[in-house]
Amino acid sequence: MEMRKLRMGMVGGGEGAFIGAIHRTAALMDGQIELVCGAFSSDAQRSLESGKKLGLTSNRCYASYDDLFKLEAALPADQRMDFVSIVTPNHLHFPVAKAALEAGFNVISDKPATFSLKEALELKELVESSELVYALTHTYTGYPLVKEARDLVARKKLGAIKKIVVEYSQGWLTDLDTKGNKQAAWRLNPQTSGVSCCMGDIGVHAANLAEYICEDEITDVCSLLDSADTSRLLDDDGTVLFKTAKGASGVLLASQISVGEENNLRIRVYGETASLDWHQHEPNTLWFRPLDDSAVMIRTGVGSLSEQATAATRTPAGHPEGYLEAFANLYQSFVAQVRLNIDQTPLPAGVERAPSIADGVRGMAFIESVVSANKSDRKWHPIKLHID
Amino acid sequence: MEMRKLRMGMVGGGEGAFIGAIHRTAALMDGQIELVCGAFSSDAQRSLESGKKLGLTSNRCYASYDDLFKLEAALPADQRMDFVSIVTPNHLHFPVAKAALEAGFNVISDKPATFSLKEALELKELVESSELVYALTHTYTGYPLVKEARDLVARKKLGAIKKIVVEYSQGWLTDLDTKGNKQAAWRLNPQTSGVSCCMGDIGVHAANLAEYICEDEITDVCSLLDSADTSRLLDDDGTVLFKTAKGASGVLLASQISVGEENNLRIRVYGETASLDWHQHEPNTLWFRPLDDSAVMIRTGVGSLSEQATAATRTPAGHPEGYLEAFANLYQSFVAQVRLNIDQTPLPAGVERAPSIADGVRGMAFIESVVSANKSDRKWHPIKLHID
Amino acid sequence: MEMRKLRMGMVGGGEGAFIGAIHRTAALMDGQIELVCGAFSSDAQRSLESGKKLGLTSNRCYASYDDLFKLEAALPADQRMDFVSIVTPNHLHFPVAKAALEAGFNVISDKPATFSLKEALELKELVESSELVYALTHTYTGYPLVKEARDLVARKKLGAIKKIVVEYSQGWLTDLDTKGNKQAAWRLNPQTSGVSCCMGDIGVHAANLAEYICEDEITDVCSLLDSADTSRLLDDDGTVLFKTAKGASGVLLASQISVGEENNLRIRVYGETASLDWHQHEPNTLWFRPLDDSAVMIRTGVGSLSEQATAATRTPAGHPEGYLEAFANLYQSFVAQVRLNIDQTPLPAGVERAPSIADGVRGMAFIESVVSANKSDRKWHPIKLHID
Amino acid sequence: MEMRKLRMGMVGGGEGAFIGAIHRTAALMDGQIELVCGAFSSDAQRSLESGKKLGLTSNRCYASYDDLFKLEAALPADQRMDFVSIVTPNHLHFPVAKAALEAGFNVISDKPATFSLKEALELKELVESSELVYALTHTYTGYPLVKEARDLVARKKLGAIKKIVVEYSQGWLTDLDTKGNKQAAWRLNPQTSGVSCCMGDIGVHAANLAEYICEDEITDVCSLLDSADTSRLLDDDGTVLFKTAKGASGVLLASQISVGEENNLRIRVYGETASLDWHQHEPNTLWFRPLDDSAVMIRTGVGSLSEQATAATRTPAGHPEGYLEAFANLYQSFVAQVRLNIDQTPLPAGVERAPSIADGVRGMAFIESVVSANKSDRKWHPIKLHID
Repeated sequence: MEMRKLRMGMVGGGEGAFIGAIHRTAALMDGQIELVCGAFSSDAQRSLESGKKLGLTSNRCYASYDDLFKLEAALPADQRMDFVSIVTPNHLHFPVAKAALEAGFNVISDKPATFSLKEALELKELVESSELVYALTHTYTGYPLVKEARDLVARKKLGAIKKIVVEYSQGWLTDLDTKGNKQAAWRLNPQTSGVSCCMGDIGVHAANLAEYICEDEITDVCSLLDSADTSRLLDDDGTVLFKTAKGASGVLLASQISVGEENNLRIRVYGETASLDWHQHEPNTLWFRPLDDSAVMIRTGVGSLSEQATAATRTPAGHPEGYLEAFANLYQSFVAQVRLNIDQTPLPAGVERAPSIADGVRGMAFIESVVSANKSDRKWHPIKLHID
Repeated sequence: MEMRKLRMGMVGGGEGAFIGAIHRTAALMDGQIELVCGAFSSDAQRSLESGKKLGLTSNRCYASYDDLFKLEAALPADQRMDFVSIVTPNHLHFPVAKAALEAGFNVISDKPATFSLKEALELKELVESSELVYALTHTYTGYPLVKEARDLVARKKLGAIKKIVVEYSQGWLTDLDTKGNKQAAWRLNPQTSGVSCCMGDIGVHAANLAEYICEDEITDVCSLLDSADTSRLLDDDGTVLFKTAKGASGVLLASQISVGEENNLRIRVYGETASLDWHQHEPNTLWFRPLDDSAVMIRTGVGSLSEQATAATRTPAGHPEGYLEAFANLYQSFVAQVRLNIDQTPLPAGVERAPSIADGVRGMAFIESVVSANKSDRKWHPIKLHID
Repeated sequence: MEMRKLRMGMVGGGEGAFIGAIHRTAALMDGQIELVCGAFSSDAQRSLESGKKLGLTSNRCYASYDDLFKLEAALPADQRMDFVSIVTPNHLHFPVAKAALEAGFNVISDKPATFSLKEALELKELVESSELVYALTHTYTGYPLVKEARDLVARKKLGAIKKIVVEYSQGWLTDLDTKGNKQAAWRLNPQTSGVSCCMGDIGVHAANLAEYICEDEITDVCSLLDSADTSRLLDDDGTVLFKTAKGASGVLLASQISVGEENNLRIRVYGETASLDWHQHEPNTLWFRPLDDSAVMIRTGVGSLSEQATAATRTPAGHPEGYLEAFANLYQSFVAQVRLNIDQTPLPAGVERAPSIADGVRGMAFIESVVSANKSDRKWHPIKLHID
Repeated sequence: MEMRKLRMGMVGGGEGAFIGAIHRTAALMDGQIELVCGAFSSDAQRSLESGKKLGLTSNRCYASYDDLFKLEAALPADQRMDFVSIVTPNHLHFPVAKAALEAGFNVISDKPATFSLKEALELKELVESSELVYALTHTYTGYPLVKEARDLVARKKLGAIKKIVVEYSQGWLTDLDTKGNKQAAWRLNPQTSGVSCCMGDIGVHAANLAEYICEDEITDVCSLLDSADTSRLLDDDGTVLFKTAKGASGVLLASQISVGEENNLRIRVYGETASLDWHQHEPNTLWFRPLDDSAVMIRTGVGSLSEQATAATRTPAGHPEGYLEAFANLYQSFVAQVRLNIDQTPLPAGVERAPSIADGVRGMAFIESVVSANKSDRKWHPIKLHID
């Protein structure tokens, strides 16, 4: 059976942009995708230069995302890009995704899906009416052992879930002098970042991870957000107490001023009969701790794991896989969904669908609820999914 | 110079009692104390049998703590006990300590100091007017590297403290069927345990550890307490958001239903220029993580540590010391304080005073504030140290 | 500046072959290489099918490596492959590499370079007279912190090296019933594997790692090889005591019957003033332990690392990188060397040359010396680099 | 039932001696032993002062071990010491033990049992003819999880043992300038230390640990011993390849110049169906790794352990126990054996006998064989247990 590589376009991700390079590596490594075009910068010259450094021909380096969608749509079907990868700053995610869908292109977007919950709800309607694939890169769901964790919960190996402790700590915003740090500048700026820095950037990943593993929804939050300095307009640290639809309680810690922490994402799920513990620093290990018995160290590739975990693993046990492979797993899911759309190729065994616009809506609702709960003297606040 | 062993009496800790055996081991291992008498049970016969199994003569096995204090006080000074160790259930800590002080005996008491904040304040006055030594076994402050952590904070190696995350998780109360588990029965019973199970038993240790290391005080709390089952009258799980006098914010997690956790006490302190991480499971390791530099693994006995850490260490590097040695360090401090009282022997270099009734008062205030904050819809509650 | 992707051909690596897929992922992920052709199997039909599944056109799927080299050489320069990747079983590495070099193609070959030391020496002469690039995938030298380790040794941070302990343990050959395990079958067969199974497959990686980090050469060996069963014609376990040119002594443990070990490659280097410890299971951590001071945990991306380590890192600290990225780093080196050859593009800052045929020669000499030392009653044996 | 404390005397262990303090702590912590007398130094005045600092009366502080045995033997039975603890430098172990046995006293001796194999064999005969208890403090066999490891091997949970890797690494002799380090001085001196420094001090512990856990005997050795400097008369580093009576092969690494290592004792045992891994740095964890399944982390106090491990544990799970508790477990065994001798009190459930003079003989044979094997050009050498 022949394989045709899917053709990818990219909006954003010009020279020097961190996340664009990550997306390209993740997209390319499995040999199923080729990068064919892009609007890499709002500056036409920079877009051209970036594209050429990536090996593209000049005529596929566009001056704007409008041009990209218009001119690609006009190409013959066997040259035209199959999907666009959106890696712009947050405030452009929505307009670019909207334009892509309206031009008939599948979308894979960096997170957050939009700038506000309102936009997210609008985008959800657009996706649903489009019959196109929209995927959101909640990267951490791509790890094999995160999938294994979800599978263990689903198979009731923990019993009913009682407590969830999830944490995402970083230290990179500790230093108040962020001059010259572009990442810091736009993330701490409400105009480009949205209503939250820390919760919007990483807290929402933690919330998504908890909901994904437990197949549960956070319904109520009590939140405390902080900034290391009054000059900062957005939060750089916060803690959220929460309750879930299925009756668990939980704690979510997120921080960008926890000096010494690299990218410390960890989740523990405690059930009635066992608990789980997964830590991104050592992503190929998942702890399973049964009541009154020895803990079991589940490892990628060792023993009998779920079909989902196995499909997300590339190498034999003991060959550490990491963040880029997890990210590539999202692209694998997305590619499989697009192929299903194109020619009804069924999803390969164990390949799940990528996070969707529904996750995007929940994420935006989480962020906005946490921010408003923080301002209140009341302890508990429901997460509002609809805005009237 | 000759050394005279101090003579210890014990109230509680009869056969089968867990904490009594711990106290005796901790007291004996350094060869500075001998056990000479006890009222090991409220049942005179059990007290006698317990004492004989411990190698005591029958006439020093008392039928009640009243007898103990009265008859020991009547003995010649060179036979009379020097201090009493109180290891009864919680509700007796106060009356026994009070009786001891009134009879002129130094006291080392298991924690909590009393049953209520009111009693704690009363006991504080008694101690202060007595000129006797009163020590409270907040065990975890006895670890060498906890002392090192305190020293690093004191020497400003972390800069101003911004955030504290402290956790004490256990799983032993997960199973709802606690029949036949004596420890579970009395701890979940408000008559013997007080207003809280989880916060009173272990949450207060976590709070004490944070205050000890940071030399700071928790001033405000927001709390969420839970019980695994409605049949339980007291909390078995909880989270506390807090603020401190010196301007840090923090999170305290305590749980007895986190299945798979053994005795997971961990504290992380994040300052402006570095952070600390200490975990009781590996108590001989303390992480120091400076801003933008490699983390340093401080180990008991390796390199140059503080005088306090060094004085609390018995063996060369790589010989793991643990819980019993930490506990014994409290007894060492207590012994040194008593000797200072008896004959003005100065405290040895690096030996700190043991936790005192002041810690006991703060602990009771923490417990009562957290319990009342949990019942409120308001987010924040001050810790009240005085009851009117 | 424009970038032209290098065009890769592949020999071996048809459907189901483990190492071929690894090479492709490593080659593709950085967007510098495109796969354009291959002779994926000695069976023409399988080669064609494999190639089509990889997205190749039929006319670039060759029936044999002879065809590959002949027909690619005949293509116009702007279509012709730039290099070939050799991922056949061991006994074909030499003839394929030889044919490639003779046809004027750069070569990147899986390890071992050849079937015997004699072939390796012959290949070395061929490479040297060719002015082409030949790289050998000693994968583990591609890890950022292995490069950091080498840099620390080179900068004398450890003082003179006294002792090296290197270990490569696996358990996958524990089970004697290897029926149906193709990997086991050919590796335990002298016809396809060579004079050694365990030492040839993984022991040589360990030796290479030690020599790479210490910039030293093993000169004498004492060896003990074992087989779990007399039915096995080759070793599946062994230990080598060794001495080096610079005066260190060492121990090399290699095993494929250490049940429970995944792919446990670890090296410790002890100098006069400090030691290093690196473990592939957690490849983003490197321990540096100075004399009489706290150990330092060097982490990928944290603080100030060498230019070599930095160039080999794709993501910020805390995003675990693993085996595939280490492998991709070898391809990056190789690509840089080929570009240097093509148009004098200088090697990018921090990019080292990939392991070469000189490493291949040393590897074969190590394997053959260890095998012959094992058969002897004498303790010590020199490593012979020249065969007469 | 009444308990009588056993009365301990001590030879050696005066002020400032490391190992004497360890023995006293281990002896005292369980409340079964009281220190009643000693000959703490060969200098009568120092012996007296040391004894008084330990709380002894002057008349029980003896000027020599001859006095100790003679005068204690003359005391009434209800005052006389029950046993002597020998903590002198190595060369005195034998004469003191001999004198003790001849005077009718039970003996617990620090390791090595004697200065030479010849003395060990003589001592074995003396013990056997005496009907007294002789125990040797091979400390590491006192850890609960070392006992669990032995139990797992005995119950065939690993199948037949194929390979043993045991290591004992320290760095404290790295620095060549050992002036002023008393421990270094006597250990590197053949007159006080014997034929070996590193193998005699710690290599023999590693060998004992392997034999204890596997209930097997090392029969043949190939050894490489080193010294960091030619000025050293004894080894400070070495590796031993070995074979065992039951058919396993193994590697023993011992070092005192592995800078950065604290007291790194680790053993791995690989069987046909599972493996074990235990590390003294984290002594409350034992890894059990079955073939083709997830690894299991056995923890002190968690789940169902052997009667031996349980009897050797003092605190609930998660309260780290360490070196001093392991040492105390040897004293517990010794006490139980002495009580059995005195009044036929049976050994408590799970309490094993302490290491004996048979272990002492094997240890001396190991040391002497390794030293002579090192001098030979031949690879393999049998361990000789009898000297003619």
